Amino acid sequence: MMAVKYELIKKSNECNARLGRLHTPHGIVETPIFMPVGTKATVKTMTPEELKEIGAQIILSNTYHLYLRPGHDLVEEAGGLHKFMNWDKPILTDSGGFQVFSLGDLRKITEEGVEFRSHLDGSKHFISPEKSIEIQNSLGADIIMAFDECPPYPSDRDYVKKSLERTTRWAKRCKDAHKNPETQALFGIVQGGMYKDLREQSAKEIIDLDFPGYAIGGLSVGEPKEIMYEVLDYTAPLLPEDKPRYLMGVGSPNYLFEGVIRGIDMFDCVLPTRIARNGTVLTSHGRLVVRNAEYARDFSPLDPECDCYACKNYTRAYIRHLFKANEILAARLATIHNLYFLLKLMENIRKAIKEDRLLEYREEFYKKYGYIK
Amino acid sequence: MMAVKYELIKKSNECNARLGRLHTPHGIVETPIFMPVGTKATVKTMTPEELKEIGAQIILSNTYHLYLRPGHDLVEEAGGLHKFMNWDKPILTDSGGFQVFSLGDLRKITEEGVEFRSHLDGSKHFISPEKSIEIQNSLGADIIMAFDECPPYPSDRDYVKKSLERTTRWAKRCKDAHKNPETQALFGIVQGGMYKDLREQSAKEIIDLDFPGYAIGGLSVGEPKEIMYEVLDYTAPLLPEDKPRYLMGVGSPNYLFEGVIRGIDMFDCVLPTRIARNGTVLTSHGRLVVRNAEYARDFSPLDPECDCYACKNYTRAYIRHLFKANEILAARLATIHNLYFLLKLMENIRKAIKEDRLLEYREEFYKKYGYIK
Repeated sequence: MMAVKYELIKKSNECNARLGRLHTPHGIVETPIFMPVGTKATVKTMTPEELKEIGAQIILSNTYHLYLRPGHDLVEEAGGLHKFMNWDKPILTDSGGFQVFSLGDLRKITEEGVEFRSHLDGSKHFISPEKSIEIQNSLGADIIMAFDECPPYPSDRDYVKKSLERTTRWAKRCKDAHKNPETQALFGIVQGGMYKDLREQSAKEIIDLDFPGYAIGGLSVGEPKEIMYEVLDYTAPLLPEDKPRYLMGVGSPNYLFEGVIRGIDMFDCVLPTRIARNGTVLTSHGRLVVRNAEYARDFSPLDPECDCYACKNYTRAYIRHLFKANEILAARLATIHNLYFLLKLMENIRKAIKEDRLLEYREEFYKKYGYIK
Repeated sequence: MMAVKYELIKKSNECNARLGRLHTPHGIVETPIFMPVGTKATVKTMTPEELKEIGAQIILSNTYHLYLRPGHDLVEEAGGLHKFMNWDKPILTDSGGFQVFSLGDLRKITEEGVEFRSHLDGSKHFISPEKSIEIQNSLGADIIMAFDECPPYPSDRDYVKKSLERTTRWAKRCKDAHKNPETQALFGIVQGGMYKDLREQSAKEIIDLDFPGYAIGGLSVGEPKEIMYEVLDYTAPLLPEDKPRYLMGVGSPNYLFEGVIRGIDMFDCVLPTRIARNGTVLTSHGRLVVRNAEYARDFSPLDPECDCYACKNYTRAYIRHLFKANEILAARLATIHNLYFLLKLMENIRKAIKEDRLLEYREEFYKKYGYIK
């Protein structure tokens, strides 16, 4: 009995896009899907009820942050992450690897794992594949991720090859350490940088370990978007058709379209929530910095084509006022809007796949929104 | 035709408490009532729907802040404060006087009005009684307040007498300047400091001007609570029975009980929202600093006797985690709880008046909550 099962509903007749359903212990997720990020056991500014209202089906939470604060033992004592944060739909936790590697000088990688200092208080910690899985088992997410290394861009071939091979050894150790395969699905992660043969090598090694889902890691790390698309072009088809495919850390509208078209089922990104708190919103005509003076007397909604709570009830002038006055409601309204915008986009994308008009929908969208970003 | 009408439903048989209804252009308010404060056209962290859900019937907004930012002309252009902030129930705006007088060295009082410098950018401004009413007419609240001077505590008798007499002259000017008496009720404010004869003088002068409601100003300005209660003891009975009575700037549970018992119908205070954002909550057993380490593994609700959204769905441990992690949801949950606590308290107080057991209810409440704020 596996924790998560992917049901392929339809393959597009015009591209590699797929329509599917992810069956998890906390319900069904329709794919392709965007997962809002709730780093510290909360999607910033939002309640679980609001997330459901805007159509969120699954959220992501971060192992590194929860390990440091409040601690995975405390979350386990609370009854697990779902209960702790009052979210009864599926959750995915990352492995903590990406955050730990991002610490730069604060971390040291060995075959055993990664030693690092906390960004909060400088205290010393060690995360190994086994430790990452132990933490994720305590948190209790429906989908958990193997502890991998994500090399920066650019990295030389030699380093990337050594790194992906270690990632394979770590993936095996993660699988062996995983205590709850019947309630938590452990996904493997394909690395290999921007090298086709290394992606092939990594995909083969990881798939040989037989995971219930696969992620493509090591993208959106600073490479030009053409390179990301090229890597997706040759990597996605390497993955088994009967398992979900997750492109990590990607969530701008263009990336979502291009990822789906290349066969990706799952995405996550802090972009919509982060830019929202800074006063930038996604609209059908591109990004809009609602903080700007030009919107002071603009009594139209953030996006006239949107029917989210913020757009139905408030004007740009009011939301700009809230941002200028440092009012929390500003961040709330912009976050609701941005997440709704992406979740609605994914809903439209699923519909377009069903009706075999995804490429046409993409053109329509780009014409208004703009292609760059 | 008057904008606001007070309907006296019942006078307590055991004290001066009254049960009433305030009929306003935006609906009926049951009194005695606590009004949450939405200083800058938003009750901090809350949406209007959430305010309604916790039982808010009327909110207060601040003329001084809205005049400076975004400007009353902009709010008027937006269709008034109700439309600007998406709140369709009653609103009361203060006169801006209290904020301007609080500026200390930044302001200068003359018979004509008050010159002051903005706390935002140091720019020079002048607010007269006429200007205050002009701003409040633009904002469009259901209840607006006369521009008065609120002397600090302690102030000598001579100063308080001169000040209250000027407040009377200003009240007359406010009445003359008021453009919308049919849609906005202008309340007069009784001053007179802690001097019984001056309160009597002020009450007589202000009542002679015939306002649709009266506030007691100049209390909760640093005086011992016994003095506040004493002033209320002799001032409230001076006010006409057929008009609402509003005690400005008061909102701790003890003050609410003691005010109601002395015949007050309306209260406002930033206390519940302000302490909430700092991690302090009101509970049936007194204040609780949920930020504190002792609640790290406390998986009980903020107040086990409360049935607000925060208490029904989250633990002290989770809310403490959110505060430590600087998450916005922390302030949201604590604010929902604190406002619900006070609004529910007022509902219980109204019920107790109806059943002539307010004094008993007060004793019960104090026994658990503690008498000192």
